[in-house]
Amino acid sequence: MPHAPLPTPGERSVERGGLGGSADTPSSPGAEGVRGGLVAGGAHGPEHLRPLTAIVLDALGDAARARGGPLPAGGPEAVEQSTRALCSPVLPEEGVGPEVALGDVVRAVAEGAADPADPACVAHLHCPPLAVAVAAELAGAALNPSMDSWDQAPAAGVIEELTTAALARLVHPAAPAPDALITSGGTESNLVALLLARERAAGGPLRVVTGANAHHSVHRAAWMLGLPAPTVVACSKGRIDPAALDPVLTGLAGSPLLVVATAGTTDEGRIDPLPEIARIAERHTAQLHVDAAYGGPLLFSERLAPQLAGLEHAATVTFDLHKLGWQPVAAGVLAVADAAMLAPLSLRADYLNADDDTEAGLPDLLGRSIRTTRRPDALKMAVTFRALGRRGLGKLVEHCVRTAEEFGRAVDAHPRLRLRPGGIGISTVLFRPAAADALPDEAGDEVVAAVRRTLLAEGRAVLGRAVAEDGDGRSRLWLKATLLHPDAATADLLPLLDLVTAAADRAVSASAADRGVSEASAADDTEAPETERLSP
Amino acid sequence: MPHAPLPTPGERSVERGGLGGSADTPSSPGAEGVRGGLVAGGAHGPEHLRPLTAIVLDALGDAARARGGPLPAGGPEAVEQSTRALCSPVLPEEGVGPEVALGDVVRAVAEGAADPADPACVAHLHCPPLAVAVAAELAGAALNPSMDSWDQAPAAGVIEELTTAALARLVHPAAPAPDALITSGGTESNLVALLLARERAAGGPLRVVTGANAHHSVHRAAWMLGLPAPTVVACSKGRIDPAALDPVLTGLAGSPLLVVATAGTTDEGRIDPLPEIARIAERHTAQLHVDAAYGGPLLFSERLAPQLAGLEHAATVTFDLHKLGWQPVAAGVLAVADAAMLAPLSLRADYLNADDDTEAGLPDLLGRSIRTTRRPDALKMAVTFRALGRRGLGKLVEHCVRTAEEFGRAVDAHPRLRLRPGGIGISTVLFRPAAADALPDEAGDEVVAAVRRTLLAEGRAVLGRAVAEDGDGRSRLWLKATLLHPDAATADLLPLLDLVTAAADRAVSASAADRGVSEASAADDTEAPETERLSP
Repeated sequence: MPHAPLPTPGERSVERGGLGGSADTPSSPGAEGVRGGLVAGGAHGPEHLRPLTAIVLDALGDAARARGGPLPAGGPEAVEQSTRALCSPVLPEEGVGPEVALGDVVRAVAEGAADPADPACVAHLHCPPLAVAVAAELAGAALNPSMDSWDQAPAAGVIEELTTAALARLVHPAAPAPDALITSGGTESNLVALLLARERAAGGPLRVVTGANAHHSVHRAAWMLGLPAPTVVACSKGRIDPAALDPVLTGLAGSPLLVVATAGTTDEGRIDPLPEIARIAERHTAQLHVDAAYGGPLLFSERLAPQLAGLEHAATVTFDLHKLGWQPVAAGVLAVADAAMLAPLSLRADYLNADDDTEAGLPDLLGRSIRTTRRPDALKMAVTFRALGRRGLGKLVEHCVRTAEEFGRAVDAHPRLRLRPGGIGISTVLFRPAAADALPDEAGDEVVAAVRRTLLAEGRAVLGRAVAEDGDGRSRLWLKATLLHPDAATADLLPLLDLVTAAADRAVSASAADRGVSEASAADDTEAPETERLSP
Repeated sequence: MPHAPLPTPGERSVERGGLGGSADTPSSPGAEGVRGGLVAGGAHGPEHLRPLTAIVLDALGDAARARGGPLPAGGPEAVEQSTRALCSPVLPEEGVGPEVALGDVVRAVAEGAADPADPACVAHLHCPPLAVAVAAELAGAALNPSMDSWDQAPAAGVIEELTTAALARLVHPAAPAPDALITSGGTESNLVALLLARERAAGGPLRVVTGANAHHSVHRAAWMLGLPAPTVVACSKGRIDPAALDPVLTGLAGSPLLVVATAGTTDEGRIDPLPEIARIAERHTAQLHVDAAYGGPLLFSERLAPQLAGLEHAATVTFDLHKLGWQPVAAGVLAVADAAMLAPLSLRADYLNADDDTEAGLPDLLGRSIRTTRRPDALKMAVTFRALGRRGLGKLVEHCVRTAEEFGRAVDAHPRLRLRPGGIGISTVLFRPAAADALPDEAGDEVVAAVRRTLLAEGRAVLGRAVAEDGDGRSRLWLKATLLHPDAATADLLPLLDLVTAAADRAVSASAADRGVSEASAADDTEAPETERLSP
């Protein structure tokens, strides 16, 4: 059995590269690594990756042009057919090779994408990622560090530490020892926040109290953790009503309490009144968690950060960078006011953090997640932070907020649309076609839902939907535009308004036909837009 | 306020691309989208990505050559210093721009990587990802579909459905309606498996029974879910002892029971005796979950699949493709025998899956994860599956197993190393330097640990560690090589053997010095390898 000779001390690179690939020339087994064309890492990895990434970029561009809009036309059936045609069978007995597989499957996913880079794709907290962050993802994927032990992520662990420290200081600037964890998103952040609160609780099971406006993940976390279902506090105008919170906490006196407030609700972009909530929570010795998955990045902007006043009182804060942060998923964060709060996550697994290794100075990374193997999501955050700086990030947040304000004004000025009373929330605009208002409540809501589905099916726009209180105090269904595009100008968005009114006219017509209204009387509505849209 | 004219019916591409970017030429606002240089998606995204991915690939190659080995030399302090030098402050007030940030941070993370593409990086179930899978990740990150609703992932949802269906059939080929979920890894898969079992349980809290060889995530999942701590069954030779399982289940009679077995243990790569365990579990009306995070991909190989006989009896199976599957993290799977078992995860959130949308034919994707926003991890799996086919994947699995067998034989033949009795497990080889055996147990274990740390600190090798039963029945510490490289040949790995014996000699010498043995008597040991290594 041939053993490579031990290197002499002077030959540093050969010394450390002694396990070079067998396919290398025998005379230089050194630092070049395995040449085989399969893997992405090592010195030869970039050679393997270069032609494949070129295929991907070409396919992405071609497919976006072929799609020609924010999403494919034809609805779910058409997308399923075209995707299956390119990707089935997904697991053939014999492969078709990397080039063909990449070309086909990437074309399928891109032609059939709802692409948030299109200004008409505004349904959700679903951002177009920055090119710089996507390029950083490529590096992370090629190196594949796993964040659960130092010997899988020596430098990536340091980058995560720097990144979480910066985020921790951003959220809790005055705390002596703040910290932050990287998570897979707001849902995991909320889960870990409730888990940590459950473990801090003494004298009975934790009771969670949250607003009617909270994200479903708060309820789901309580269910997963075996906690009683959260008590729901009424909202006023989409925000927790402090006057309603106080008696709820009084009613639960004696139990350990966690109040969960929201800074940036999913439906309306509203920020709960954090200072009042913090005061009330403190009076009841309740701890405070704030789900700022959406609103957290307002902190990057000096001008907008004051909207989050009170956040510093929260024990834990959910903060996503795959919303207003333009990272590809996943880029979740949970900030904690005090690093000691993370103690319940600490864990000993001899293969990852044996005591003697830790004593010998190998950093213990295991207690920083509920996952074990874990992606280097901090890498893309770090690259983006360094690239743009806090000021650059703040400007992009301000751009989205300003665009939403301008879009809201355009809706308000439009004679055939109605902006929801109460203004926009962060970068979320709710509105309805006036044609829906002319109908009975249920029929009006049906028109709103039909407008959304029609524009989806036609491949013209990806609008969201939200049930929210109207000016008369009644709940109605609204179209939702969540504006997260860091490049799109307001002018890019204005054509949405006519798309909506035209689709609404068709929906009203269909609705009228359904209700047996004569076609003659409905005809006025359907023909109206052709003339009206030219003179808004 | 300028509104774009409504398109006439014939102008399909203009019609659907009407929200083009403001920076486009006014005469063609169409399908080209926003030109601004920030985002990765849309028709212009590839133009933005191309120069940035070139920076990344150059930095990865340069850094791998500069590193010159499987990990940087110098240990945690040196890595921390060099990483901080390139990446601090992570969040400056003003940014340095995408190119500089990418160049610096990628160089830092790559120079400071423990790169599994190097054959000497074998500590963990930490694989070198395939270039084809990494390229697919680039597409996923650029398009950024989120898998929680159809209108964020029209085609990506179909690709996930095809991929999970193929995996479900692979694991449960005879089940009438098998299904599978994509997870962030084995830890999440085990958590969801226990959650589903908890929800199926009737007549008392679920009791989990698992082997002493189980992954820590089984215990952690029970803790998170508020379940009693799992009851631990003794192992024999690293596998659950069926004779010990039976009385444990008898002792818990009356409670709903879940037995968790392992197919591919982390420390030893052992596969529990699944057929016997399944029979015993059935006799006690216990359900069975199998954690096959490591071993699952043996199913790709016709020759190796029989090692997993009995897996088909499991209600749920954890299966990772970021181990023997060569995907960049995350690529976890939970296979279930019956799709109906997933019902507890179903969830209604009006903004994502309103009833009327679902009735109108929009697929409901929300109940397929405990996460909400979710990466398109199925995309890279689908591309890899199509590229290699089942047979190609099976060959790579067989390559790793064969390499481990050959490496094990080389260890066994080496006069100064000892292979752990009982043979290798899947692709995991445990061994010790004979020099450690010559010492009292504790001192011998210290030498083994020191060898690992020395090779880490010197940047020469990333070996794992495991406590496991020796031939005399006593627990000892072993070096662990987990061989997951799909390209590396056995010859690439052999230099590891001499690295270990040389480091062991130094450790024995240091240990002898610590124990006050005279330098004279220790000198024999330290000088031995220089001559011995040339004649193994």
